[in-house]
Amino acid sequence: MYDWNQPEPHARVRVRNRADYDHETIFSILDQGLVAHVGLIMDQRPMVIPMIYARIDDNLYIHGAKATRIIKKPDVDAPACLTVTLVDDIVVARSAFHHSMNYRSAVIHGRVRPVNSRSEKEQALIALTNHALPGRWDEVRSMNNKEFRATGVLALEIESASAKSRSGPPIDDDDDYALPLWAGRIPIQSTLGSPIADEMLGDGVSLPDSVQAAIAGSK
Amino acid sequence: MYDWNQPEPHARVRVRNRADYDHETIFSILDQGLVAHVGLIMDQRPMVIPMIYARIDDNLYIHGAKATRIIKKPDVDAPACLTVTLVDDIVVARSAFHHSMNYRSAVIHGRVRPVNSRSEKEQALIALTNHALPGRWDEVRSMNNKEFRATGVLALEIESASAKSRSGPPIDDDDDYALPLWAGRIPIQSTLGSPIADEMLGDGVSLPDSVQAAIAGSK
Repeated sequence: MYDWNQPEPHARVRVRNRADYDHETIFSILDQGLVAHVGLIMDQRPMVIPMIYARIDDNLYIHGAKATRIIKKPDVDAPACLTVTLVDDIVVARSAFHHSMNYRSAVIHGRVRPVNSRSEKEQALIALTNHALPGRWDEVRSMNNKEFRATGVLALEIESASAKSRSGPPIDDDDDYALPLWAGRIPIQSTLGSPIADEMLGDGVSLPDSVQAAIAGSK
Repeated sequence: MYDWNQPEPHARVRVRNRADYDHETIFSILDQGLVAHVGLIMDQRPMVIPMIYARIDDNLYIHGAKATRIIKKPDVDAPACLTVTLVDDIVVARSAFHHSMNYRSAVIHGRVRPVNSRSEKEQALIALTNHALPGRWDEVRSMNNKEFRATGVLALEIESASAKSRSGPPIDDDDDYALPLWAGRIPIQSTLGSPIADEMLGDGVSLPDSVQAAIAGSK
């Protein structure tokens, strides 16, 4: 079990005032993100891939078709890094030097563990399906054995975790505040739009609760 | 110079119909993204960090304060991976197995090169400032020598690049189309909201062209 009060040295974030090891902060970023960027070492190179992910308590899961390279032959105990970033504002300053972004990011270091137990794999698949649309698992046609076998699930055993963020207005040099230059923030808004029904949808099929709730929650 | 027609083996994407090596596709993803996830190997571990980036022709640049670990002491020729992902839709299928995301991602592999030439560094800083807000460099107070020296710029010498995407409706199993279950897509809309002026802003300072154009272009 990862001790949230004792971050490992490689989790320490260099810019002190932007770092936060509090697990509630880290969990809230992980729970709000839709896609993680997962880093693995392959052929002595870093490889960064966008992936759907899910969290159950302290456990992080990713999944994919068994035909996928990293899912098919995961290196057990291979070090991995899972990063989730929420981008909040473009920070517009009076000098190029102080331009920035407001953001919240969680960086999780750990080791890869293939999930072989049937019960843990099922819980992980439920969490992965429900991550973007809570409650969706209970609405869909049940997963059959063929699909269950064809899906590989990996857990990331957390060894260290950190959050980093920036918020608020630009911080300009004292002398620059007097300049007649605009400065401020431009919010980056990410919302869910109106659902587009599949053309193959039968008559009279209404929007499920999970989709309605997700759209309502994103406004 | 990277030959866009000869992707290196490690750039090949496993799911054939989702892979695209065309450089116009790759450039358009890089030009639309705001934040890249940059992967490096540190202490035998993959490290994935969100970073502002910019492209000039075939060259990719990242930057940071010289106090930042990877900017201060970059391993020359260290392998790096820069990934930019645009998330388009949540794909809602009739079975959990076929749930997915529509997205476009560009994965660039290369090697780190510190940018020491004054002219290349200046061009890179202009591109980095203008990436989110084209034209902003010409509006701000000019960069002074102290700031120029305090900023480290790294180039990523591209060795291989690939794009991967999914679009369109869910693809369900034939038998599932007859089920009375909703399926379709939920668009993920990312737009720029109304600018929030810095409280320290003097009277009569109007919104600059770069900010107006970025907001108009994001609708």
